[in-house]
Amino acid sequence: MNENKIPYKIYLEENEMPKQWYNVRADMKNKPAPLLNPGTKKPLAPEELKPIFCDELIAQELNNDDAYIDIPTEIQDFYKMYRPSPLVRAYCLEKKLQTPAKIYYKFEGNNTSGSHKLNSAIAQAYYAKKQGLKGVTTETGAGQWGTALSMACSYFDMDCQVYMVKVSYEQKPFRREVMRTYGASVTPSPSNTTEVGKEILRQHPGTTGSLGCAISEAVEAATKQEGYRYVLGSVLNQVLLHQSIIGLETKAALDKYGIKPDMIIGCAGGGSNLGGLISPFMGEKLRGEADYQIIAVEPASCPSLTRGVFAYDFCDTGMVCPLAKMYTLGSGFIPSANHAGGLRYHGMSPIVSQLYHDGLMEARSVEQTAVFEAAETFARVEGILPAPESSHAIRVAIDEALKCKETGEEKTIVFGLTGTGYFDMVAYEKYNNGEMTDYIPTDADLKAAVATLPTV
Amino acid sequence: MNENKIPYKIYLEENEMPKQWYNVRADMKNKPAPLLNPGTKKPLAPEELKPIFCDELIAQELNNDDAYIDIPTEIQDFYKMYRPSPLVRAYCLEKKLQTPAKIYYKFEGNNTSGSHKLNSAIAQAYYAKKQGLKGVTTETGAGQWGTALSMACSYFDMDCQVYMVKVSYEQKPFRREVMRTYGASVTPSPSNTTEVGKEILRQHPGTTGSLGCAISEAVEAATKQEGYRYVLGSVLNQVLLHQSIIGLETKAALDKYGIKPDMIIGCAGGGSNLGGLISPFMGEKLRGEADYQIIAVEPASCPSLTRGVFAYDFCDTGMVCPLAKMYTLGSGFIPSANHAGGLRYHGMSPIVSQLYHDGLMEARSVEQTAVFEAAETFARVEGILPAPESSHAIRVAIDEALKCKETGEEKTIVFGLTGTGYFDMVAYEKYNNGEMTDYIPTDADLKAAVATLPTV
Repeated sequence: MNENKIPYKIYLEENEMPKQWYNVRADMKNKPAPLLNPGTKKPLAPEELKPIFCDELIAQELNNDDAYIDIPTEIQDFYKMYRPSPLVRAYCLEKKLQTPAKIYYKFEGNNTSGSHKLNSAIAQAYYAKKQGLKGVTTETGAGQWGTALSMACSYFDMDCQVYMVKVSYEQKPFRREVMRTYGASVTPSPSNTTEVGKEILRQHPGTTGSLGCAISEAVEAATKQEGYRYVLGSVLNQVLLHQSIIGLETKAALDKYGIKPDMIIGCAGGGSNLGGLISPFMGEKLRGEADYQIIAVEPASCPSLTRGVFAYDFCDTGMVCPLAKMYTLGSGFIPSANHAGGLRYHGMSPIVSQLYHDGLMEARSVEQTAVFEAAETFARVEGILPAPESSHAIRVAIDEALKCKETGEEKTIVFGLTGTGYFDMVAYEKYNNGEMTDYIPTDADLKAAVATLPTV
Repeated sequence: MNENKIPYKIYLEENEMPKQWYNVRADMKNKPAPLLNPGTKKPLAPEELKPIFCDELIAQELNNDDAYIDIPTEIQDFYKMYRPSPLVRAYCLEKKLQTPAKIYYKFEGNNTSGSHKLNSAIAQAYYAKKQGLKGVTTETGAGQWGTALSMACSYFDMDCQVYMVKVSYEQKPFRREVMRTYGASVTPSPSNTTEVGKEILRQHPGTTGSLGCAISEAVEAATKQEGYRYVLGSVLNQVLLHQSIIGLETKAALDKYGIKPDMIIGCAGGGSNLGGLISPFMGEKLRGEADYQIIAVEPASCPSLTRGVFAYDFCDTGMVCPLAKMYTLGSGFIPSANHAGGLRYHGMSPIVSQLYHDGLMEARSVEQTAVFEAAETFARVEGILPAPESSHAIRVAIDEALKCKETGEEKTIVFGLTGTGYFDMVAYEKYNNGEMTDYIPTDADLKAAVATLPTV
């Protein structure tokens, strides 16, 4: 099977690991639009962000100029515990598909958070610690981000307060317990511990919560406690900066074997993995040094890039967060109840949004039964049970590899395998039982949701 | 933190991976006692095993002479999907403990089965396929072995029938769904699909099942279907042979950096991981080439080595399997209801039993609250949430490292981290809530259990 000299897994040596993050904004001609104050609608000054975010993270958030930012030694040391992550040649998938395409995937799931989220969590915890803070607050849905942040905070011996969407808190107790094992306190949201939570409970007594509402609670909790700040696992520029470690390692591993990809594919919810994976390749493209086909894959049931509008919107449903210019479905958009595949955020990273708007990348939407079909195919031959989120990228990678089979092209396809699906077995069970269905929002659904957009 | 030149993770290159398994029996002066026919009490001839096991696996089971056995290329290829596994230098744990000891662990959890079980599952599935069989049957408790076998069978496109202890089937649906995703059929045991299952249900209508009972059902299912054989994930000599890949890789990684361990520690249930990990080191010890302190760690609530008897016993509760000479608590022994930490098999691998009996290794038993305390400490600094089973080894590794702190000795400690605890969160929750208790069986408990031993 291994007729080729490329090993199944390419690992960088420890001394080959990146020592700087890459900031793609430095090479973007059209920078992402600035965050706005939701009250004044004016660009936010750093001082206005200080009650919410750590100082150094604000600097990173607003830094559109420096192409490379040093990774502090302490973070490099933590990265060495679970990185470099392998770049895997999918020999068995290629054989199964009988495709002439060469498929590689960058696997970020070999750590207890189960995903790439840890790459930014450790950075955010580190800067909070360095600033002398006591702890951080955040929200989590299914729990990948909350788990990652709990791990990072426990490493630096900091307090970690997680607001977990109530329905997940109750129905997915396992990730909750992982967070608790790492010493985090986990509160089901909405809760009575914040004013915004109380108000939501008053208005909607039986609500099972939402991510946007948990964000609002976490932000309030951070601003009301001395020595606390709020941290976020996706969407923000700083997060994409930290996640550039994924793309930098991928590129270094490919360069080591002289491989030039034709196509780079990533799943996109808030855009943290996709943005991190594509960053150094996009940089080459922006500088005119190379060209790549870059594809973002999103759920057909939550199609922010393919069917959303490019406009300023709220990042949370409580409407307390800054406004961001992004592809959005409206902050009130909620995917239909049958949606099981993750990537349910209403908006998209401003960086990814701008790159997409400028025609530098493509986007595709896929339906969830097709996603789980791809997940099963992949799991059976590659031995990794993928997260539903990651499986969106697998779906398009398989589709592209099958096109190559028809045309005979030997394209080199790289995709991001963001994580494992060990905590998503309820969705797999639904698929295994043939009970999974698809739902594509109607134009009327989408029109109603964008009616909530703020006027800027 | 990294004052030393040893990297955090030592990975072998693909071409450094072992191409042969090591059979420690070849170097044992006292060979493990032969399996006996439960009826005649005579050593089993290969022909008698043929209805149950694949031919080539029988040959491996009975092979006490060949020190090295080639790993078929197909299995080597599969190993390359998830191996070599990293040998990790536990820098962060050392720092946390402030110990002069140097701690390494061989981590086998980075695959979807979540443990080392896949190393033997793929071998057993391969030989079954090679023999032209349609499929295999097996039992599983919490589901690690069943998951591993499902993955292996799906890779070779074989049928896989798993009898899963009913209480786990109902209470731990997630591993069941992983198995189904890999195409296995999973039946709660005891079931009405076998005679032995029907009989057990008749006698104990409300029973929630046991591992021994699931073994009996799986063996019956294998023998009654054309083209099927039974496979087992631990205890047997063949399994330890396949698991020697763990020890061989560990030794190769240590040799690469000129490291000679003082102490090798492994958790022990049926003995598959421990036996595999220690094999090449034990080989050196048996041949008088080196000396190592080797420690098996078992639960105080299921203490087969430390408090069992060395005698012939049944491998299953249905008493249909061959008799094996081993340290055993009696095939009717069931750990107390509060036992959460795995490693609940009543017996121990005949190879490990013989080595222990001959004074070539030590055994220690540890209580589960102390095990989970070690698990939490480890998780928080090393970033991996360990399986409760693996955490037995962590407990003793930490204890030994703390002894070094007292004495100032710079011992090199290697332990086996067999897997991850993602599917064990119910036990972690109990620990997190302070609801976990210990139970050490009384002498009377143990005396009652060994009363079921067969007379040989």
